Amino acid sequence: MILTRQSRSWIDHANGHADFPLHNLPLGIFSRGDAAHRCGVAIGEAVLDLHGVLAAGLLDGLARQAVEATADGALNGLFGLGPAARVALRERLLDLLGEHSEHQAALEPLLYPSSECQMHVPARVGDYTDFYVGIQHATNVGKLFRPDSPLLPNYKYVPIGYHGRASTLRPSGADVRRPKGQTLPAGHSEPRFGPCARLDYELELGIWIGQGNAIGEPIDIAEAGQHVAGLCLLNDWSARDIQAWEYQPLGPFLSKSFITTLSPWVITAEALQPFRCAQPARPAGDPQPLAYMLDAADQAHGAFDIELQVLLLTPTMREQGLAPQRLTLSNSLSMYWTVAQLVAHHSVNGCQLQPGDLFGSGTLSGADPQAYGSLLEITEGGKRPLLLSNGEQRTFLEDGDEIILRGRCVREGVASIGFGECRGRVVAAP
Amino acid sequence: MILTRQSRSWIDHANGHADFPLHNLPLGIFSRGDAAHRCGVAIGEAVLDLHGVLAAGLLDGLARQAVEATADGALNGLFGLGPAARVALRERLLDLLGEHSEHQAALEPLLYPSSECQMHVPARVGDYTDFYVGIQHATNVGKLFRPDSPLLPNYKYVPIGYHGRASTLRPSGADVRRPKGQTLPAGHSEPRFGPCARLDYELELGIWIGQGNAIGEPIDIAEAGQHVAGLCLLNDWSARDIQAWEYQPLGPFLSKSFITTLSPWVITAEALQPFRCAQPARPAGDPQPLAYMLDAADQAHGAFDIELQVLLLTPTMREQGLAPQRLTLSNSLSMYWTVAQLVAHHSVNGCQLQPGDLFGSGTLSGADPQAYGSLLEITEGGKRPLLLSNGEQRTFLEDGDEIILRGRCVREGVASIGFGECRGRVVAAP
Repeated sequence: MILTRQSRSWIDHANGHADFPLHNLPLGIFSRGDAAHRCGVAIGEAVLDLHGVLAAGLLDGLARQAVEATADGALNGLFGLGPAARVALRERLLDLLGEHSEHQAALEPLLYPSSECQMHVPARVGDYTDFYVGIQHATNVGKLFRPDSPLLPNYKYVPIGYHGRASTLRPSGADVRRPKGQTLPAGHSEPRFGPCARLDYELELGIWIGQGNAIGEPIDIAEAGQHVAGLCLLNDWSARDIQAWEYQPLGPFLSKSFITTLSPWVITAEALQPFRCAQPARPAGDPQPLAYMLDAADQAHGAFDIELQVLLLTPTMREQGLAPQRLTLSNSLSMYWTVAQLVAHHSVNGCQLQPGDLFGSGTLSGADPQAYGSLLEITEGGKRPLLLSNGEQRTFLEDGDEIILRGRCVREGVASIGFGECRGRVVAAP
Repeated sequence: MILTRQSRSWIDHANGHADFPLHNLPLGIFSRGDAAHRCGVAIGEAVLDLHGVLAAGLLDGLARQAVEATADGALNGLFGLGPAARVALRERLLDLLGEHSEHQAALEPLLYPSSECQMHVPARVGDYTDFYVGIQHATNVGKLFRPDSPLLPNYKYVPIGYHGRASTLRPSGADVRRPKGQTLPAGHSEPRFGPCARLDYELELGIWIGQGNAIGEPIDIAEAGQHVAGLCLLNDWSARDIQAWEYQPLGPFLSKSFITTLSPWVITAEALQPFRCAQPARPAGDPQPLAYMLDAADQAHGAFDIELQVLLLTPTMREQGLAPQRLTLSNSLSMYWTVAQLVAHHSVNGCQLQPGDLFGSGTLSGADPQAYGSLLEITEGGKRPLLLSNGEQRTFLEDGDEIILRGRCVREGVASIGFGECRGRVVAAP
């Protein structure tokens, strides 16, 4: 579809835009000043007000229904309509925003500079599930505890995941207040209480669920991909010292629930279609997925090829006028399971998924240290400080540090698209 | 308060009612036929339609606001108003339903037989957190894995909990479909896929959160009790075989997320006030709670004295015309932490709690086997089958088995109150 349609927009700044050229058309929820939350689409350096496009009478059929479903200021209703409505809206927007559009005059007043728009978490998240399917990350973390057998016996059979906290999902730009909590200092048998001393980031993809399922009715692997509305970037901020003391036997809790930051634009499954590829072959000796997670089409093109970055901007770098320094260059192909496999597994017990549910992928680290997606891995649990270009050192994050996640899809012969940013700055504990 | 007001109702079947006498007045959401979901209060064998009471002009001030806040068919808005609104509504209902009421004629048409009312989950649960603070349960389960040190080192410092699945919370009476999933048969190194063979119940209290907090702003222990709107019964259905294979390292996931059943009536903090008591003294040698969870008033009367029961009705017992057999007689005093301590801990990292959030207490087992709150404990992990009175045996639940939870508060000189039932019947895997 992508390659057969016009590829230039009458909006000059969209053409060649690193993140939001015409073929991206990510969906989000924005507001301006005190105005209501509205559905918009990013195009170059602007946001197109889809509510306004609807009011101007420029949408009909499924495309109209898609935008009408966002009247409550969230994308849940649109997600619940499934792929056909997203596709219809996308097709119409490609016409309206393409270089041969007949509606420039009507649309120009509905375009706002992105810098004037406040972006919000785009859906009311009913449940947020954080997976752990970055196998290199699981290996790196496992090595800190079990050098000889870093992966547990279930890892290559079960897409490991756990329920996360939905109430503290926040959009890019929200402050990250350093949490307080219980920690067990080395060599002590009794915990202390105070600000986290080992604050970390985790580079993840977020996966937005479209249509859901009824309780008791699993989603078949062959259909599972159709239940994914799109992707975003997700920073699973982690208090490593709190985590180490609290996590047994039921998993991380307060060490993660203080905030999770999302990039606000939903990069739709349709926009990502040209960047699908085969799921990387499992290493020799790895088991095949069980039948409920095995589908030939999913194996052939169910993976996403997304380049992922983490950048750090410290207060000193800010004072020195330096640009953020890249800490990580990774790729989503480090996921051991496809997103369809995550959907099939999550629902196989009859668990109900709902439109606007969110999955995190787990930290997506690559094989070499420049691709590690957390400071825990980069500094080997704080043992090897990271030397920054300006001479500063970090083991974990300090107050004032800002972490920026970026994502980008690049493929020869296809216009590349990006995810925008997922930013968060650490502020001191209360 | 309770003892100084009139204690009899003009509704005869309420007087002496085991669960819902005048002084209980639990809040719930009900519907009749295809009608909309409405807020109601249980009184004897009837449900009083509070929307109707509002429409009849019988409420004003805070009591009126309380019911108006339920216009969307859920209790979240009422919970968010905090204790004063609940108290005002309760006071007014004690007058309206008390024996000296002047409004019998206006109220009679607004009373529906409970048997004609369908009850719903009373609030939209933003986040559901399941704790693990029944110390006897944690000890019993820990013994199965670590006979010499059943409790992990953090247990007596950290109220252990994890995020649960909100989308599959269901009201009493919903079918419990046996989940399918991965399990590792004994002696095997590769998992199989199929219906759960070790399906279990867990006897818990549910804790409904009233007013919430802003992200980054912990709730002080001295205020924490004011954030609890009320309690219910909660059955944390558990697939033990799926749990054993999946739970490391991030905790239970699909083994719990297929359904969690709630009793539909919220027994308010006000109704429970006469049944508060001192938190049981910690055994000698146990550490004191850290300062952020320590409050003299909470220690003096922050616990609840609630008698809890589990009953089983098998298909054979049903055919034989037998009553359900009691498997468990326990008490909420087995909680190692108070509900205020759970609120303070949950928010101490800045995690946002919201009106209508739900906590589970964790399984509330007592010290002797007749007080164990799960089959896992009663049968020692399936090793010692339970012999039922009619000659049947159970290690875990079979299709057609129905589990009924009951709760009751009894104290000398105070009219006792009950929780109603939390029922669920197991149906075969799909």
